[in-house]
Amino acid sequence: MATSGSKCRACKAPAVIDLPRHNANFCAEHLLQLCRRQVEKAIDDYEMFSKDDRLLVAVSGGKDSLAVWDMLVEAGYQADGFYVGLGIGDYSDESGDYVRRFADERGLTLVTVDLRDDYGYDIPTAAKVTKRVPCSACGMSKRHLFDKAARDGGYDAVVTGHNLDDEAAVLLGNVLRWDIEYLARQLPVLPARNGFPKKCKPLVRLTERETAAWCLIRGIDYLVEECPIAAGNRHLYYKDTLNSLEQKSPSSKSAFYLNFIDNMAPLLADQSAAAAGELNDCERCGSPTTNELCAFCRLVEKSSAHEPVPVELVLGKRGRS
Amino acid sequence: MATSGSKCRACKAPAVIDLPRHNANFCAEHLLQLCRRQVEKAIDDYEMFSKDDRLLVAVSGGKDSLAVWDMLVEAGYQADGFYVGLGIGDYSDESGDYVRRFADERGLTLVTVDLRDDYGYDIPTAAKVTKRVPCSACGMSKRHLFDKAARDGGYDAVVTGHNLDDEAAVLLGNVLRWDIEYLARQLPVLPARNGFPKKCKPLVRLTERETAAWCLIRGIDYLVEECPIAAGNRHLYYKDTLNSLEQKSPSSKSAFYLNFIDNMAPLLADQSAAAAGELNDCERCGSPTTNELCAFCRLVEKSSAHEPVPVELVLGKRGRS
Repeated sequence: MATSGSKCRACKAPAVIDLPRHNANFCAEHLLQLCRRQVEKAIDDYEMFSKDDRLLVAVSGGKDSLAVWDMLVEAGYQADGFYVGLGIGDYSDESGDYVRRFADERGLTLVTVDLRDDYGYDIPTAAKVTKRVPCSACGMSKRHLFDKAARDGGYDAVVTGHNLDDEAAVLLGNVLRWDIEYLARQLPVLPARNGFPKKCKPLVRLTERETAAWCLIRGIDYLVEECPIAAGNRHLYYKDTLNSLEQKSPSSKSAFYLNFIDNMAPLLADQSAAAAGELNDCERCGSPTTNELCAFCRLVEKSSAHEPVPVELVLGKRGRS
Repeated sequence: MATSGSKCRACKAPAVIDLPRHNANFCAEHLLQLCRRQVEKAIDDYEMFSKDDRLLVAVSGGKDSLAVWDMLVEAGYQADGFYVGLGIGDYSDESGDYVRRFADERGLTLVTVDLRDDYGYDIPTAAKVTKRVPCSACGMSKRHLFDKAARDGGYDAVVTGHNLDDEAAVLLGNVLRWDIEYLARQLPVLPARNGFPKKCKPLVRLTERETAAWCLIRGIDYLVEECPIAAGNRHLYYKDTLNSLEQKSPSSKSAFYLNFIDNMAPLLADQSAAAAGELNDCERCGSPTTNELCAFCRLVEKSSAHEPVPVELVLGKRGRS
């Protein structure tokens, strides 16, 4: 990952990675230090949480979520993991194995939910039944169960592994449509409100190349494969677009995201508050919703009555998120 | 430009152009009608000007500026042309020929300025002397002289041929940096203020493919070649990026620009007003400026004292605008 013969900026030892956006190369130890500092800076700058808080980290078995869990535990935060079995064929089976192995080896607490076992459906079936793109049903299911697990377990904040590449790509998508409500909510921290837990993204200052390097150096085994349904979606296309811009002009990706947070997000604060509105409790599960039944309970109702749909039938029906 | 055998949406005659963003094909006459309607809509929606106003149209000899001048004259507006000889080698010589021929053939009034003859410098020399990118010195010179010509001639508004591709590319550049002051000023109309004339962009709803088709159908001879200094600048790269997005998702380019104007620009209105500030008159030329001498007079002072620099020496020193 580094040019042959290049040296660490901090200690002049042989470098293992070059980071054009920092205009520097780093050895393994100083790459870890850079990651730790960027994460601490995000936690501090955006007032995410303290060491007294109980955190629930959504983990998928991929590099980002395992990296953030590892970083938080290493730094002394109280962080449990949360995993949802989505029923996306071999992909889900493998992702669960990686997560459980990570937790077991470190003696960490892992909260798990399985869509098929616990709610009688899976993502391919939900996608087929709702005729919506699979990424939409998947995102909604994960958010709902994550929020619920945080409430049920009395956690102070939930944490996701969204990195700079993810956030910049979502931002590009929102900007291309100028969806003000979405833009106003695209923050590294969303405060608790209306029964939803506080949501934090400590990796927003790290690229996926950096989180991959973290895992490599720390010996974290993660699922490299991307979700087979998401492959080719717009989110990945936006990532490619930003990577091309970054290659032409290093650090443009972080400028795009961080300048948005610094310069624009404050101007949109009112728009977010205005959009929040009043919510009531879902009649079935008690979750906050604008309807009688929340979107998750409606999805469960429809999907659990349907016979299971094999993942192969929904490949290529990718969504934009 | 159209698929063989395709038919005009309006009259079913053979089509000469297909426009995926409108999901339609058009014959020559109905393509002209579409252009006229989009221009009238921009003029009306953004309250640009009326037929009582005297307009000064900046023309470069390229398709967009000649198209907008032609459209305005055809629609009955009082529109004179304004051309600046920039001294960019053969490119400038040819561009001047196209502009003068267009005006002569139609009996239109053309106001001209020549940087070398009238101010003792040219763009290659200015770029060399100021050590700034040539596009920066060029843009500043053109804006200054355009504003001055409008004041001197008592025009009610100045008009440029910026099209949807131009505006979307500038918007992308501004968004990537989240430069709020630039974003707040990126409007299809800037009202007159502090001695600056009202500025209007009637082509913001038309792509460059559409303005090229207008010229082709109307028999307007224009300079196809782009400025040799600007070739490869970031602006063109942003255009390519948006063209890729447009190809993947037709009408995303117009959504990006027009949703910005509709959804975001109103939220930025205060930022623009705040940035306007108070100006005084340039001691030398009387133009509004924040300094004693305006940027143009400072440029003239430096550049006119320097021996002329051939254009070849500044090729590849492109800028971002």
